[in-house]
Amino acid sequence: MSTGHHEASWRLPESNPFANTSVEHYQELARIAERGRFDSVFFADSPVLIGDVGRRPAGSLEPTVLLTALAAVTSRIGLIATASTTYNDPFNLARRFASVDHVSGGRAGWNVVTTAGPEAALNFNLAEQPAHAERYERAAEFLEVAYELWDSWQDDAAIADKEQGVWAVNDRVVPIDHVGRHFQVRGPLNLPRSPQGRPLIVQAGSSEDGKGLAAQYAEAVFTAQQTLEDAQAFYSDLKARTAALGRDPSTIKILPGIVPVIGSTVEEAQRLECQLDELIRPEYARAQLAKTLRVTPEDLPLDRQLPADLPDEDEIEGAKSRYTLIVTLARREKLTVRELIGRLGGGRGHRTFTGTPEQVADAIQHWFEAGAADGFNIMPPVLPSGLATFVDEVIPILQTRDLFRTDYTGTTLRDHYGLTALQKATV
Amino acid sequence: MSTGHHEASWRLPESNPFANTSVEHYQELARIAERGRFDSVFFADSPVLIGDVGRRPAGSLEPTVLLTALAAVTSRIGLIATASTTYNDPFNLARRFASVDHVSGGRAGWNVVTTAGPEAALNFNLAEQPAHAERYERAAEFLEVAYELWDSWQDDAAIADKEQGVWAVNDRVVPIDHVGRHFQVRGPLNLPRSPQGRPLIVQAGSSEDGKGLAAQYAEAVFTAQQTLEDAQAFYSDLKARTAALGRDPSTIKILPGIVPVIGSTVEEAQRLECQLDELIRPEYARAQLAKTLRVTPEDLPLDRQLPADLPDEDEIEGAKSRYTLIVTLARREKLTVRELIGRLGGGRGHRTFTGTPEQVADAIQHWFEAGAADGFNIMPPVLPSGLATFVDEVIPILQTRDLFRTDYTGTTLRDHYGLTALQKATV
Repeated sequence: MSTGHHEASWRLPESNPFANTSVEHYQELARIAERGRFDSVFFADSPVLIGDVGRRPAGSLEPTVLLTALAAVTSRIGLIATASTTYNDPFNLARRFASVDHVSGGRAGWNVVTTAGPEAALNFNLAEQPAHAERYERAAEFLEVAYELWDSWQDDAAIADKEQGVWAVNDRVVPIDHVGRHFQVRGPLNLPRSPQGRPLIVQAGSSEDGKGLAAQYAEAVFTAQQTLEDAQAFYSDLKARTAALGRDPSTIKILPGIVPVIGSTVEEAQRLECQLDELIRPEYARAQLAKTLRVTPEDLPLDRQLPADLPDEDEIEGAKSRYTLIVTLARREKLTVRELIGRLGGGRGHRTFTGTPEQVADAIQHWFEAGAADGFNIMPPVLPSGLATFVDEVIPILQTRDLFRTDYTGTTLRDHYGLTALQKATV
Repeated sequence: MSTGHHEASWRLPESNPFANTSVEHYQELARIAERGRFDSVFFADSPVLIGDVGRRPAGSLEPTVLLTALAAVTSRIGLIATASTTYNDPFNLARRFASVDHVSGGRAGWNVVTTAGPEAALNFNLAEQPAHAERYERAAEFLEVAYELWDSWQDDAAIADKEQGVWAVNDRVVPIDHVGRHFQVRGPLNLPRSPQGRPLIVQAGSSEDGKGLAAQYAEAVFTAQQTLEDAQAFYSDLKARTAALGRDPSTIKILPGIVPVIGSTVEEAQRLECQLDELIRPEYARAQLAKTLRVTPEDLPLDRQLPADLPDEDEIEGAKSRYTLIVTLARREKLTVRELIGRLGGGRGHRTFTGTPEQVADAIQHWFEAGAADGFNIMPPVLPSGLATFVDEVIPILQTRDLFRTDYTGTTLRDHYGLTALQKATV
């Protein structure tokens, strides 16, 4: 979110409530993250206006446009944006990400989503969303088409022989002639091969279908995990699924989201957390929670626990893993609706670590060394201040402990993730 | 084109043959054009790989990505890109252009095209392209949907009341509930209203359907006109069509393309022109011409005139006006195929003015004062050098004659074109 991952962050005196449409705001965030030697910045997205515009800043710049604006003011940091395979077509989207890869010198990544929720469909000529399995089948074919298009130009296709007047070798740029269940695409792409060949593929769905797609295609996975045990189980499950498909499990990086609430003392950190939670307007948040749980707001009295008779995950069409995460969290910790709203408002289901820089670094080290993560998606509650605090106070500790780079060693996003560059395309 | 509008420009020693994927190249062009106080830069585009990659640089950065990269290094110049209504959907495209309008502070323009030629369809699940009239009907409805989406947020929707915790006023952001023949789109847009409200609308098709679309929607029209008389006829026709629809004809700016081939003497200019024409490989160019004319290359001996029995414009599906322009030019001037190729290679059908800066300025003034143009689309044969020459040597003459601004007086693209800002949206 623009002003921070805590939903009430925009109400703080320091926050720019119009940051969601401010390119300068995002450029500042990218510069801070690059100063901290982050692998990448990452933006969620959905092709529909989400939630209640009364409640918090809504609407956002289209992500490939945003990444391009960030590429212009940075030189090393990776740039990852979310785009839907359900509500795009592969030719235009493959070209757009390859274009970002070109303008950034090989720093583009695509978080592949199938877009949960019935509302998005209504913006795209559909009366209802395609079923969950259908969306994932389309996503897999969409990725295959994107790969074919990115590979439709060999690296050495353009020879630029001015003397002979031959710009490219014809048989190094060939149609893909893809004919599948969802797509018929002739190709080739109308753009020469980009620096990374293929932008990095990221995935973030944790349903069964989502994990299957990740094991097959993803090079990085964003996930929401509330406890160390859940994170370890997710980590080993996904690594095993990846290995079972014949892939080296080290080629898929698992990155849980964490919300670091940092203070110079524990008390100061807790004060910030309380200050933010008190700014949540519970009637808005309850309406949103009710929607996610497929009940009415009246079913959710603020000072009671969740009703006992909620649907199973199997009955939920979309955002399955988020649904399960919320219900499991509430039941495990016996939270009232009011408490649950506080927890979700702070990080939308991601794990919050509240404490001093040292304590946050300890938690990160613990999760990393306990086999729960290859890295983390840092989701500060307040932006840009929470990011700057993390960069200035937590990163140096991690560097001292030899857990984080002190400078970039490569130039591409795949370099930063320690992934091997792709082989040359041979079309 | 990346290295210039002359198709052989990439073969000159000075040209970067990989400029088509170089963001730095385009950023340099935009900076030069801004130094010259141009209204805007403009990029053609097609969602298919066009022509023979052996012949000249092919493939290009996706235009909204490119505009964003240019917005980052400029502050005033307008940014216009081409996008197809046939091979996009209105929700995503409207958001993308609105995003460019946001990141550029109100400098975005959209050249609306229906995309001629059967090849593009094959990249988008279609066996053949929709018929000409069908494409234009879709384009009109596409624009209506885009307008509704851009207007779905009132200017003052977001009030950002931190005290009360109310970010936007709910009834100032409303669904559009569009239900039409081609599109069903619920809305609202997932992005607050952009600085211009609606990006500037440009149109460039000169067929009957194209002129109809322009008269109804366009604020600027790019056109290829070979003679003053043709340009005058086109100008008065389109102004009349615009007035007939109840629009003030001064709100549509007509901008013929011109290719200025500039030398410090006439002889030097002609030498540059000859040097370029000699670099055209006629067998490539003939194959392309044959495709446009729907004949085989063997039907076009290089030293004869065009065959007499070519089809009528009515029989042509797409790029109708370009077809007619080429045939008319060849017949009127009794050009051989070789001569025609030289003329088309220089400016792809646009009018070439070859001479000294003074002579080029004279020609521009003459067309402008004779009612053939409100302005011009400057298409240098070689880039960046031809643009720099125009800016440094022709623009000062036009400024001395009070025909061109000496500095920007507004901040938005609509300001530069002398168009009134849109009224506030009232949803």
